[in-house]
Amino acid sequence: MATGNNAIGTLVPVPGIRMSAVSAGVRYQNRLDLVLFELAEGTRTAGVFTRNAFCAAPVVLARKHLQASAGAVRYLLVNTGNANAGTGDQGMIDARHCCQALADAADVELTRVLPFSTGVIGERLPAEKIAAATPSALAALQDDQWLAAAKGIMTTDTRPKAVSAVVTHNGQNISLTGITKGAGMIKPNMATMLAFVATDADIEQDTLQALLMSAVEQSFNRITVDGDTSTNDCCVVSASGKSGIKVDKSDAGLYDAFSRALHELILDLAKLIIRDAEGAKKFVTVDVRGGATTGECLQVAYAIAESPLVKTALSASDPNWGRILAAVGRAGVDNLDVSRIDLYLDDVCIVKKGGLAPDYTEAKGQAVMNQEDICLRIELARGDVNEQVWTADLSEEYVRINASYRS
Amino acid sequence: MATGNNAIGTLVPVPGIRMSAVSAGVRYQNRLDLVLFELAEGTRTAGVFTRNAFCAAPVVLARKHLQASAGAVRYLLVNTGNANAGTGDQGMIDARHCCQALADAADVELTRVLPFSTGVIGERLPAEKIAAATPSALAALQDDQWLAAAKGIMTTDTRPKAVSAVVTHNGQNISLTGITKGAGMIKPNMATMLAFVATDADIEQDTLQALLMSAVEQSFNRITVDGDTSTNDCCVVSASGKSGIKVDKSDAGLYDAFSRALHELILDLAKLIIRDAEGAKKFVTVDVRGGATTGECLQVAYAIAESPLVKTALSASDPNWGRILAAVGRAGVDNLDVSRIDLYLDDVCIVKKGGLAPDYTEAKGQAVMNQEDICLRIELARGDVNEQVWTADLSEEYVRINASYRS
Repeated sequence: MATGNNAIGTLVPVPGIRMSAVSAGVRYQNRLDLVLFELAEGTRTAGVFTRNAFCAAPVVLARKHLQASAGAVRYLLVNTGNANAGTGDQGMIDARHCCQALADAADVELTRVLPFSTGVIGERLPAEKIAAATPSALAALQDDQWLAAAKGIMTTDTRPKAVSAVVTHNGQNISLTGITKGAGMIKPNMATMLAFVATDADIEQDTLQALLMSAVEQSFNRITVDGDTSTNDCCVVSASGKSGIKVDKSDAGLYDAFSRALHELILDLAKLIIRDAEGAKKFVTVDVRGGATTGECLQVAYAIAESPLVKTALSASDPNWGRILAAVGRAGVDNLDVSRIDLYLDDVCIVKKGGLAPDYTEAKGQAVMNQEDICLRIELARGDVNEQVWTADLSEEYVRINASYRS
Repeated sequence: MATGNNAIGTLVPVPGIRMSAVSAGVRYQNRLDLVLFELAEGTRTAGVFTRNAFCAAPVVLARKHLQASAGAVRYLLVNTGNANAGTGDQGMIDARHCCQALADAADVELTRVLPFSTGVIGERLPAEKIAAATPSALAALQDDQWLAAAKGIMTTDTRPKAVSAVVTHNGQNISLTGITKGAGMIKPNMATMLAFVATDADIEQDTLQALLMSAVEQSFNRITVDGDTSTNDCCVVSASGKSGIKVDKSDAGLYDAFSRALHELILDLAKLIIRDAEGAKKFVTVDVRGGATTGECLQVAYAIAESPLVKTALSASDPNWGRILAAVGRAGVDNLDVSRIDLYLDDVCIVKKGGLAPDYTEAKGQAVMNQEDICLRIELARGDVNEQVWTADLSEEYVRINASYRS
């Protein structure tokens, strides 16, 4: 199950970035499960990683290598089928072994390879299989394999997720293309379950890291499927510089245009995860407006977005506003005056000043609930801060998937 | 679906307390939906109420009447089928109307009647139907109708929930009997979705309130089905004094014995809710040990108990310890050293110092997971505080129930 249409737009190659997807047999045979990105010499890479205290060995190692190489990364090595999480010291040895095999084959320093893993937690990574597949992954590198790479990082995803954007500056183009994966265990905290974005803009390391963090904060850090933060979340952006166009604050117009394009691309990727949420039939925007602080807006938004009762009502297309109010009421906002709160389903006002809106009818609410895309808007009337969170419904299929898939 | 056996033990009458259950036709015909408790003159009543900011009209009124009567309550009037929540000013008028009808028929002051409602949120309470049924409820009062009352307060519950206890003191008995209801929208905050406990002990109002709050904190406030705090949670205890046995701190032995009995009775009621959780096939104790503070133990316990991924794994009897560790890791405990953590399924050690325990086998874990009652024990090795939380699994049936029942 998934929402929205299945089409992927044109994916533009990013000069300086090549990729491949091959089968290494990590967990299943004849399945694309190893994706390799090659970043041209001179490329700068920034990254954000899960804040889960039980972060996986590849996350620890990728963070370490990113720092040791000062962002001068040459390869991103991604496997599915095994998360290499909860694997202790052996997990670190296995992650390093994969990186070393690639570093040797490609003749680069170990710290210029970042490892990423996703899949089952708590089982030993078959590092030998991955190491054995690296030569074929290197041999298959092309600049037009974004879609194959998007397919190669899928686990319970039902479809690949990829987006491109182009920023035009003085008649020249900057290209951006990104892919992501994720469908469950989704409540990213500083990044989500694997996203790789590349551009040929020329950007300093610190600027790139700042742009990434700002974009992630308003996108991957605003989505939730089930409130479960993964042990393996990573989002990296690589800038090859091959366009020859320098992006920095000295040209504020270009900087803003690029920042906006990166932000929108990453937000599009984040929304694609929600559209493919396990068992999802609805794409839901929770729009909390008029809060006093970002914190209280997010408290309310997540109380709604993660309420099993709200999510099951959404699954049933039931305009059950009582459950939404109950979630707002338990969100923990200090001195919440419920008699000031309005609630809208899209543009239909269902609750006015804490009670049923006089002109609301069940037919109006039902019409919105029957849609695939729904916006729940809550007006708190406490201040002028607005925040949005995106989520999906909770269906029997979600339970079926997660009661059968060992992840 | 429910866990544990269905049997209710002997329910002892409590001198001074009478009750009845009748059909008022609140939402369905020919269904026990109105329960009345009569408390003898001299009975003292204490109560705790939901902290949901959107609390229902009857909660507001019950709290107000309890205060106005200084605990000298004579009647508890409970309806199912309609929660009278999210009903604004009209909801207050309707709740008062029901209380007034009973007060008139029984010739007591209005403030000596406490109203309680549970059922669908956001629909107007049919106060006339309830008022019309009060004379028959009064006429049916008996001291041995605890089971009927337990049945009369059920909504999505699959079975009535009632427990008795007797404290013997110098050859004389103090009786305690309590009933509760609740199966979904369960994460009580100061109390749960309706619990009524009575005793014939003679206890001062302040002492009774303190005993209730202490018992609730370690019982109803330690259970979660879905993390959704209800708008209508209430737990009250009434002490008729008819045993003639004074319970206060001047007799520390008796005070402790009574306190323990009340605590155990209320904990038993809370656990009965988890055993009847919507769609539940498992009764799960999350036992977090060795924390530095109660707060961090509860953070970890609730992160596990409310994780959809842990709960679906439990539903599938899957010893998926990676999901449990992932939940611990995202619980938000400061400076958590994952390399010190041990995890047990009952007495089977599955994780030792953050990694898979050397002598763990899937067969051992599976054997525990196949049980109906499971204890997940997490040793944090940070201090000497221990906390327990009780929860259930998340099944497809939970989703089915909540995608079809408008509550």
